[in-house]
Amino acid sequence: MQAPFSTLSAFRETLAAAPGPDKAATEGAQARNGQLTKPPGALGRLEDLAIWYAGWRGTAQPQINAPQVIIFAGNHGVCAQGVSAFPPEVTVQMVANFEHGGAAINQLSKAFGAKMDVHPLRLDTPTADFTTAPAMTEAEVIEALQTGWNAVDLQADLVVTGEMGIGNTTAAAAVAAAVLGGAAADWTGRGTGVDDAGLQRKTDVVAKGLALHQSADPLEALRCLGGRELAGMAGAIAAARHHQIPVILDGFICCAAAAVLEKAAPGALDHTVAGHLSAEGAHQQLLDRIGKAPLLQLGLRLGEGSGAALAIGVLKGAIACHSGMATFAEAGVSDAP
Amino acid sequence: MQAPFSTLSAFRETLAAAPGPDKAATEGAQARNGQLTKPPGALGRLEDLAIWYAGWRGTAQPQINAPQVIIFAGNHGVCAQGVSAFPPEVTVQMVANFEHGGAAINQLSKAFGAKMDVHPLRLDTPTADFTTAPAMTEAEVIEALQTGWNAVDLQADLVVTGEMGIGNTTAAAAVAAAVLGGAAADWTGRGTGVDDAGLQRKTDVVAKGLALHQSADPLEALRCLGGRELAGMAGAIAAARHHQIPVILDGFICCAAAAVLEKAAPGALDHTVAGHLSAEGAHQQLLDRIGKAPLLQLGLRLGEGSGAALAIGVLKGAIACHSGMATFAEAGVSDAP
Repeated sequence: MQAPFSTLSAFRETLAAAPGPDKAATEGAQARNGQLTKPPGALGRLEDLAIWYAGWRGTAQPQINAPQVIIFAGNHGVCAQGVSAFPPEVTVQMVANFEHGGAAINQLSKAFGAKMDVHPLRLDTPTADFTTAPAMTEAEVIEALQTGWNAVDLQADLVVTGEMGIGNTTAAAAVAAAVLGGAAADWTGRGTGVDDAGLQRKTDVVAKGLALHQSADPLEALRCLGGRELAGMAGAIAAARHHQIPVILDGFICCAAAAVLEKAAPGALDHTVAGHLSAEGAHQQLLDRIGKAPLLQLGLRLGEGSGAALAIGVLKGAIACHSGMATFAEAGVSDAP
Repeated sequence: MQAPFSTLSAFRETLAAAPGPDKAATEGAQARNGQLTKPPGALGRLEDLAIWYAGWRGTAQPQINAPQVIIFAGNHGVCAQGVSAFPPEVTVQMVANFEHGGAAINQLSKAFGAKMDVHPLRLDTPTADFTTAPAMTEAEVIEALQTGWNAVDLQADLVVTGEMGIGNTTAAAAVAAAVLGGAAADWTGRGTGVDDAGLQRKTDVVAKGLALHQSADPLEALRCLGGRELAGMAGAIAAARHHQIPVILDGFICCAAAAVLEKAAPGALDHTVAGHLSAEGAHQQLLDRIGKAPLLQLGLRLGEGSGAALAIGVLKGAIACHSGMATFAEAGVSDAP
């Protein structure tokens, strides 16, 4: 479906009009969960996940057959400030690696039966350096949001959004700080692995961007401080909501993009779950602020949607149990008194 | 292969003679990990898991194609003391549920491509009530250890051990206390969901068992306080080590059985990883004492190998990345300076 917006103002209205979960499906799933052959609550968080997923899919006994991993890639003018341990040409090199099947996310998508799509977003035209100008014009951020929106496969029953973009932990830190408040140092981390001097440089760059671009509007923060891949993820997360497809959020950069939506329209992330806790320093704080508890805590900090893709397995396990288990009555097992 | 022991003393010698990981494979996997297209360390714990798995499998670029989930079921004389929220006939009912494909572990095994085998261990002859006599004779515990040993499929490349047995959190608490020290209350929890009075009754029962059966020998603790399914799991974990097949440990009961091996022969669990942190109260303490950090923390407390089976996905993801990713050289991606 074509994205139903062509301005940031219209995108904001689209977010505000997003549908909620199906009440009857949620209640049906809760009832079914209580009859399955296990002590009450013994599957822990898997039970909550299954009921949540059932509500969004509109059926009490859902299946996950068609997960879609969508990777957006962008380049960042702010790389000129020396904020990354890797040179900016790695973005296009890694896109080629995605296309040839050699990256971590290729292996994880395959392992968990997900279709994987890659969207390089004008890699030959980096965003402007946000220490001197807005990263994007409205037309540029809208184009990336629309690409993200249109990237969601309407046949998908689960979406993972991921990213690649040398310099994008800097952009994500700036967006998070602008949208959620706090100082640059609260949100700036080591990314792919900068040293102490690099971390100080990143923090100064983020502070400079925050000072230059002051706006209470989260979508303006995305435009002025973000990047095309952040906007792409935001557009895809919003589209998935529109089509009632649950989303697994990835790490710091993905969650910074998601936080823009939550601030623009509270509740906009109700169809999402946090795939994992990244080792990128400020991710825990970011998850706390968007109200999400991670499914996995394994010290990943790769991006590419990798942590979220790994969490597809957890969600598949939860749905397999919920929809496949026998009830006490079906199995002839004695329930607890 | 037939179990190479017919006494507890011979089983102890088998444990002591267990092989270690392959040094060349470990080093080869470490070298490969450093060349893959990702920032160093960016896959977090997945990198450690892949190197560990490679060492045990004896190849620097391993695959997981044939996981085996092995469930042992046993009945417990100590149920006569009113230690469970469920009646003892549920053990045999749940075995039928396993055999008909209706339990949680059936769905999880299927979701993660694992073969699942169920071994009911003389369900019509519960162990003796350990508050009045040793739970098992030496012949009985040996039979269960041998069944466990022989249950491991030599074609498997990953083993999950799980259990079913109404009353077995009581037996596991008693074994853990006897083997690791501490009071009955430190190790006794709510199991499938006993109330406060039930918890007090369980704790008293465990204390009574500990007072009656005092031995410094962990294998004697398994015999006097354990159950057939605990011995079955211990035998299977030991056999997997013998055949260099890595094992994912499940929750409290599985780890209590595993702790017997670790105490009988320190290092006996080096080929194992903890699948998850159970909601059963003392599991964290038990994991600390056997030196294992859980892969998942999702509040499960079902047994059946369910948490460990869910963790197959994590391990499959780790191995898929390690063995499937391109190196910097292969992909033409610039490494960090």
